[in-house]
Amino acid sequence: MNSSANDLALGIDVGGTKLLGVLLDGDGHVLRSLRAPTPTQSTDALLGALQNLVTALDAPLDTPVGIGLPGLVDRSGILRSSPHLGACVGLDLRGAFENRWVTVSNDADAALLAERDQGAARGVDEVLLLTIGTGIGGALVQGSQLSRGASGFAGEPGHLCVVPDGEPCACGQRGCLERYVSGPALARLGQRSGLGSDDLEGADVMAAAESGDERALAAVATMAAWLGRGLASMVTLLDPALILLGGGLGSASNLLVDGARGALGTFVMGAGSRPLPELRRTALGEQAGAVGMAIAARHP
Amino acid sequence: MNSSANDLALGIDVGGTKLLGVLLDGDGHVLRSLRAPTPTQSTDALLGALQNLVTALDAPLDTPVGIGLPGLVDRSGILRSSPHLGACVGLDLRGAFENRWVTVSNDADAALLAERDQGAARGVDEVLLLTIGTGIGGALVQGSQLSRGASGFAGEPGHLCVVPDGEPCACGQRGCLERYVSGPALARLGQRSGLGSDDLEGADVMAAAESGDERALAAVATMAAWLGRGLASMVTLLDPALILLGGGLGSASNLLVDGARGALGTFVMGAGSRPLPELRRTALGEQAGAVGMAIAARHP
Repeated sequence: MNSSANDLALGIDVGGTKLLGVLLDGDGHVLRSLRAPTPTQSTDALLGALQNLVTALDAPLDTPVGIGLPGLVDRSGILRSSPHLGACVGLDLRGAFENRWVTVSNDADAALLAERDQGAARGVDEVLLLTIGTGIGGALVQGSQLSRGASGFAGEPGHLCVVPDGEPCACGQRGCLERYVSGPALARLGQRSGLGSDDLEGADVMAAAESGDERALAAVATMAAWLGRGLASMVTLLDPALILLGGGLGSASNLLVDGARGALGTFVMGAGSRPLPELRRTALGEQAGAVGMAIAARHP
Repeated sequence: MNSSANDLALGIDVGGTKLLGVLLDGDGHVLRSLRAPTPTQSTDALLGALQNLVTALDAPLDTPVGIGLPGLVDRSGILRSSPHLGACVGLDLRGAFENRWVTVSNDADAALLAERDQGAARGVDEVLLLTIGTGIGGALVQGSQLSRGASGFAGEPGHLCVVPDGEPCACGQRGCLERYVSGPALARLGQRSGLGSDDLEGADVMAAAESGDERALAAVATMAAWLGRGLASMVTLLDPALILLGGGLGSASNLLVDGARGALGTFVMGAGSRPLPELRRTALGEQAGAVGMAIAARHP
């Protein structure tokens, strides 16, 4: 089947540190892919960066645009709460692109849509997806339907409290899972192990672990154990068949998947006498969110 | 509309400390209700007590029987894991009542079914129910469907970990919510406040709080705060429109509902910029589970 120009769609995943945009054809192939830093200081700065990215992706004016935001996006597409884009709360993108049709959604919901459509979740009815990067996004499919909840805010596993009155989180609460499982969390663990100083990033620690550095492996194992503990609570509540890890950090390595699987098996209720969900990385990797938003833009 | 004898149904809710059985007519009215202690030492003892209760409820032999069990009940009706009925794991009740048609399910799923059918959750599509008694049971309705999960084990909010490596729970893990929110938990809080000694029960503390005893009120407030913290994690993940508290302790007083509402509003992600779910007691009180199992028996 040939796809016509009419089947093109643009998808943009707004992460806490980077924007990732794709131009998708009608067969689900990524024709172009671009990145840019996420300006977090104001709504106007973010909007300008998004407009530049759409222009740079160079698609016909009638190409629909889907934009995934990290945080609580209400049913009308307005960003209501966002730990990593606090200055952009209230952002309403629907009228911001003249002559373009724009769909706005939660970034992780989009990633799960893409994985259901052409990735690792095809044909699976009970799926939990976590995108792990600057923070943690999440999305749920239950009984083959995306669970949005009563207000559209369901699926924020990064803000499960795992340590009561624990370390302060960007969301304003304390002890949230993403404070212990995220790029900044892994960077802190790496810094404490002497792997680097202030400019060390989570991705650096993950890369060092992949190449066998013992201190980096220990840091990743510590983070993976927290992830497994958090997943144990989620499995107790949701009992999914499949858990997918996506996002820049979640999809970077199997070290995180393997470590979390062990902790999940240890800490879940009924351990040893219940089936455990399959746990693996997204098939579309860190592009899942952008691809999913392009799909969502085509069928809003 | 008159109900015929053919519309009768028996429902039994197996709690950690008591059995509660009802005979329901076709209009949903409870014709008879009986209680008995729950023998927890063996499968045979529990089975004997259930058979005695069915006999005592004195219904025609063709009356269907529904039995709700506290724990992980698989899709074929076998009890796979149960913190408070550990000696009864493996229990298969389907062949245990000669000449009677028996349906087996999770007790909290049954309670939610009853509340949806004739209680506080009529017409609400996104509901989380917690039954609080000896332990915590749970059930979810999402998008108007009961969420059973991939293995039928979804909805065990009592075993969310709220304190990592916290107090040991009957399920074998540590720091589970029901260790801090349950009859035994409230009894321990009451004992520490000098309200009584070893034979003090959670219900006694709740009754003392209802009559204004300051120490009992403080104990209930402590428990309610833990409940609200646990609910905050659940709301972050599930975003329900309505949370119902049932079970012997959960339905006993509005003190628990009111205290938990405050803590939920404080500890949920996006507090202040998101709608909060309604939080109240089940309409059918502690009979919800038994009534729901009678309904389930009629339409298995």
